[in-house]
Amino acid sequence: MSGEGSVEMGVPLTVEGWTILHQMFRVRWPAWKALDDGERKLALDEATGFLAELEAAARGPSAVFAMLGHKADLMLVHFRRSFEELGDTQLRFAQCRLADFLEPTTSYVSIVELGLYQATARIQAALREQGIEPGSSAWQEAVERGVEEEREALMARLYPPIPKRRYLCFYPMDKKRGETRNWYQTSMEDRQRMMRDHGMIGRRYAGKVMQIISGSIGYDDWEWGVDLFSDDALTFKKLIYEMRFDEASAVYALFGPFYLGVRFEAAELASFMSGRSPVSLPGA
Amino acid sequence: MSGEGSVEMGVPLTVEGWTILHQMFRVRWPAWKALDDGERKLALDEATGFLAELEAAARGPSAVFAMLGHKADLMLVHFRRSFEELGDTQLRFAQCRLADFLEPTTSYVSIVELGLYQATARIQAALREQGIEPGSSAWQEAVERGVEEEREALMARLYPPIPKRRYLCFYPMDKKRGETRNWYQTSMEDRQRMMRDHGMIGRRYAGKVMQIISGSIGYDDWEWGVDLFSDDALTFKKLIYEMRFDEASAVYALFGPFYLGVRFEAAELASFMSGRSPVSLPGA
Amino acid sequence: MSGEGSVEMGVPLTVEGWTILHQMFRVRWPAWKALDDGERKLALDEATGFLAELEAAARGPSAVFAMLGHKADLMLVHFRRSFEELGDTQLRFAQCRLADFLEPTTSYVSIVELGLYQATARIQAALREQGIEPGSSAWQEAVERGVEEEREALMARLYPPIPKRRYLCFYPMDKKRGETRNWYQTSMEDRQRMMRDHGMIGRRYAGKVMQIISGSIGYDDWEWGVDLFSDDALTFKKLIYEMRFDEASAVYALFGPFYLGVRFEAAELASFMSGRSPVSLPGA
Amino acid sequence: MSGEGSVEMGVPLTVEGWTILHQMFRVRWPAWKALDDGERKLALDEATGFLAELEAAARGPSAVFAMLGHKADLMLVHFRRSFEELGDTQLRFAQCRLADFLEPTTSYVSIVELGLYQATARIQAALREQGIEPGSSAWQEAVERGVEEEREALMARLYPPIPKRRYLCFYPMDKKRGETRNWYQTSMEDRQRMMRDHGMIGRRYAGKVMQIISGSIGYDDWEWGVDLFSDDALTFKKLIYEMRFDEASAVYALFGPFYLGVRFEAAELASFMSGRSPVSLPGA
Amino acid sequence: MSGEGSVEMGVPLTVEGWTILHQMFRVRWPAWKALDDGERKLALDEATGFLAELEAAARGPSAVFAMLGHKADLMLVHFRRSFEELGDTQLRFAQCRLADFLEPTTSYVSIVELGLYQATARIQAALREQGIEPGSSAWQEAVERGVEEEREALMARLYPPIPKRRYLCFYPMDKKRGETRNWYQTSMEDRQRMMRDHGMIGRRYAGKVMQIISGSIGYDDWEWGVDLFSDDALTFKKLIYEMRFDEASAVYALFGPFYLGVRFEAAELASFMSGRSPVSLPGA
Repeated sequence: MSGEGSVEMGVPLTVEGWTILHQMFRVRWPAWKALDDGERKLALDEATGFLAELEAAARGPSAVFAMLGHKADLMLVHFRRSFEELGDTQLRFAQCRLADFLEPTTSYVSIVELGLYQATARIQAALREQGIEPGSSAWQEAVERGVEEEREALMARLYPPIPKRRYLCFYPMDKKRGETRNWYQTSMEDRQRMMRDHGMIGRRYAGKVMQIISGSIGYDDWEWGVDLFSDDALTFKKLIYEMRFDEASAVYALFGPFYLGVRFEAAELASFMSGRSPVSLPGA
Repeated sequence: MSGEGSVEMGVPLTVEGWTILHQMFRVRWPAWKALDDGERKLALDEATGFLAELEAAARGPSAVFAMLGHKADLMLVHFRRSFEELGDTQLRFAQCRLADFLEPTTSYVSIVELGLYQATARIQAALREQGIEPGSSAWQEAVERGVEEEREALMARLYPPIPKRRYLCFYPMDKKRGETRNWYQTSMEDRQRMMRDHGMIGRRYAGKVMQIISGSIGYDDWEWGVDLFSDDALTFKKLIYEMRFDEASAVYALFGPFYLGVRFEAAELASFMSGRSPVSLPGA
Repeated sequence: MSGEGSVEMGVPLTVEGWTILHQMFRVRWPAWKALDDGERKLALDEATGFLAELEAAARGPSAVFAMLGHKADLMLVHFRRSFEELGDTQLRFAQCRLADFLEPTTSYVSIVELGLYQATARIQAALREQGIEPGSSAWQEAVERGVEEEREALMARLYPPIPKRRYLCFYPMDKKRGETRNWYQTSMEDRQRMMRDHGMIGRRYAGKVMQIISGSIGYDDWEWGVDLFSDDALTFKKLIYEMRFDEASAVYALFGPFYLGVRFEAAELASFMSGRSPVSLPGA
Repeated sequence: MSGEGSVEMGVPLTVEGWTILHQMFRVRWPAWKALDDGERKLALDEATGFLAELEAAARGPSAVFAMLGHKADLMLVHFRRSFEELGDTQLRFAQCRLADFLEPTTSYVSIVELGLYQATARIQAALREQGIEPGSSAWQEAVERGVEEEREALMARLYPPIPKRRYLCFYPMDKKRGETRNWYQTSMEDRQRMMRDHGMIGRRYAGKVMQIISGSIGYDDWEWGVDLFSDDALTFKKLIYEMRFDEASAVYALFGPFYLGVRFEAAELASFMSGRSPVSLPGA
Repeated sequence: MSGEGSVEMGVPLTVEGWTILHQMFRVRWPAWKALDDGERKLALDEATGFLAELEAAARGPSAVFAMLGHKADLMLVHFRRSFEELGDTQLRFAQCRLADFLEPTTSYVSIVELGLYQATARIQAALREQGIEPGSSAWQEAVERGVEEEREALMARLYPPIPKRRYLCFYPMDKKRGETRNWYQTSMEDRQRMMRDHGMIGRRYAGKVMQIISGSIGYDDWEWGVDLFSDDALTFKKLIYEMRFDEASAVYALFGPFYLGVRFEAAELASFMSGRSPVSLPGA
């Protein structure tokens, strides 16, 4: 596997899981309301069936969210095993009659990513101790073995279900590459320390907020996507605000737009599309 | 409650109240004017009834504003007890026939927030004086108690009515995180001093301008929303211009778009939608 | 009056006059041309009557401009006594049949503003000479009296007619708040000097270019709007280019979009809307 | 003439020629293709006649370009004697039936400008040698005479025909006013030197690329527009890339969007609008 | 050939190949689905025939991609021998009935470019060794000969087929010209070193990722376009992330939007347009 040879260059190892597509839509309410009851029912039955099946798919689930504000009314989040499967879902959903009444406003393409900051340091140190020469083929193989072990150990976090929490907060972000403050020019040690401090804050919110980080370099316009799931939307602000004071965020984070949604089950799509807030989620 | 453990890290304590949704709309005048009188009346009766009820709701009121300029003709401001209630209002208003003639141009999602800069210092000092170790569980509990007391004392400011003033000025803002000037890298003491100076200017406008600050980290694209209410729109410029010279604003504030509106009662919606300026507000 | 107490803080005194609304529209030519002659005539008679009356109103005049480029075909500029009057004009013009064929592309909301940089220094010095303590109530009252006197003396510049020149150049601007170059962190003395130098250039163009500055802090997305009026459009470039080299502009000015228009009388609206350049203005 | 008094302030003298309007359009192909043959022919005959006349006008010519990419399908470039004439052309073209099938995507308003960097230095030196006091009325008059002489000598470059080359590259640009690198804060001597070096590169491309610089301060959103004409589109990249390394561009230039077009004669409009690439230009 | 005289100025030599047009489209699904079967078939037969012929053209091929996310559903990439040929393809495709159901969302215009960083150094050194005076006509001629030899040797890389890999990653980029970090102000030696290091990373991915760099200075809004082709989309992230830590990217690269697509054969267009993921590519 490519990329692992660069341990000695300060490039952190990563392992990847689900590919992810976030799709944000604004409902074309006037046109939707102009449909007669029969057409609406047909469209809802079809879309509900389609989405309920996706929702239930263990090998790549989807979830539906009612969104706040003008940026979107509805968001679909898809976890899949490949970008082609995401493309297939995008293409098939577009064929649903309901999709004719949904205007795509934005989207996000990424892949679940775990940065092995601590493991990178550990593997590197172990190999050096064994006297293996950095960059040699023995080194390469050993690193690949190390990464593969990490990946095996992390399968549950690389291929998680979509957490069943009431609220979702999604936003993309970059690490700053300014003229004097440049994340990619800091040392591996500094980055490890900053990510560890950053992670410590997150750990204090464990249980309250579940976080899924996905990488989007090469796939979309920011470097990472962040999905936070919680039954208490206030914790999103508490967590992100607190993190804003740690060095990794304060100095080096650039944030894109923020999206706030309330999850509901596909089975309640008809309720949502007729203007009644869905109330299906456990915990509601 | 999470977040409070970070007092020692320089993260100011906050308490929160109403969730807020600002909805800006441009009227689709040509389509609206093309309706026949009967249809217009039906749409207006429905929307007036809907908005008048929201306006009167003590446990989460709404207000209606006629806006200046092309960014919006009409703005709705909703104060609610939860983001789900905001979502419910958004969804239900979209079902009104009138909404078919309103194009959502932008919106803002936030939550009333009071930063306890002074209280943070006070609580912290008291605990230290009592010899309680920062970060210990005793410290945590004491801080949580302190915050809860503040929250109780501040209920009227966390859950205020929407001030009945003629004019509203709304804008979102960030604290700058530049390469050399970074709010989140200044010391807690400096931030306390700057916020106190900033607040002193506001206090000189007390009675003339009412201000509601809401936090939007995790909910929308800026960090805070600011709503200013006054019967004299000139005081908005005087106040904000004067503040622009204080350190907190001059050096560290980044401002988003500004919205200026004139409040009117939902009962006068039919007047507005037929091109006659509403004159309902006390003080007009 | 609020704001005046801050003389000692380096906040320049200002006095205000007309509220201003710039409305830019693109003509929906295909739809307009598809109207039959009778409908066009009705729409033009109505709009011409409406705008001609606004144009003639001494207590708050309006003016009409044919614009260059895709940003707008038509611009209306309204001077009024209050923001509510501006809102009333906006709302009433939207009811005209002609407005159905005008797409609002942008707008600007502001208030005529004269910065009393020199007067601030003069008043301040006089009070100090009299031994009045800065910030005391005597100081406050004296400052308010001083400002009121200025305002009286400046009434003609605060409530001017819309200058009858052939060309209009409009643009919004900010003063920079960079990390090292920050207008709001320079001393009052430096700002006074820079604004005096800036004004000296303008004075050299007196008679050729008339300038109206309006403040928009709290009302729109930039801090100031600038309207330049001239019978020779070349002088706009000469003046602004020359100013770009003075310190106030070179270092501290940020410019928004520029709009160039040719004024015509409301009576010639039918000519414009049928594709014949209006030629009504004195000097044409 | 105003502006010339500022020689001693470091403001370079300029002389101006044609006013210029660039109009970019996207073709509404679906609607155009839906027209019947007779309507298409009528629209094409009208537009071809209109544009062919403009194209042939020596006292203010126009030219037509087929554009690459989604930013525009068609571009019209108009050279005129005044901004009013440009406005007249814009207004009259909008009346053509063909214009109903062209969506204006962007535009640019400017005026041919020659910066007299070298002449400024020469005139200034001569006057000083003659012992004329800078800023005196004798100085003013002498400068104005000098500029007038330059203008006379430069008439062919101020009022050129639109070069008959196959390709056009158009882009707007600014000179940077950064916090430490600010064109408008460099000395006149440095600017003269940088512009001379910059010009030397251009001279190496003489014959291969023709360049027309227009000023847009006060007229549009950037400071200058650049039109490059060549029969070999590769030279655009070679020239601009090479210039990017000279100090004037490397450090001080900010570039707007770039537009690449292929010229064709108005007589071939029907060919273009029916999907056949026009082949009319000499050199094709 | 112009440009080569500047070797001594630190401008790297380049050689160019195919002109390239990327066209991104969003499918207007509601309108497309509203067509009856016969019309859909006609439109698909025409477009499939048109694109299949382009796809097969050795002297300037095209390729079709299914895209992920809202930025585009479909992308066409055209390699041609001239910008006029690109314009011809753009114009002819717009005439297809299918194009009426494709909304152009963005595009990119560029030309295959190989930067001769190493060759520049080599040629320069050889000429100096021979005692040829830089800038002399002998130097010029020798440089032109050297470049011509390089071009001949590089024909296969200048005019490659479109690589038959399953995934495409496209993004535009600039080299930073900041106030302190400015690519165009670094020495030729530093640029050579940084580009060599940058290239070394790419080489480690040889076989896994194929890369085509195109220059767009003078043609589009960024300086370069990058197309990466691979059968494993994860390698895009690995490669670009690893490069982000090398000096050329970390300090000097600015990235535009990223596009991710899955290639399919024109023959499968009907499958795609009816919502069935195409499966045609070798390796799928």
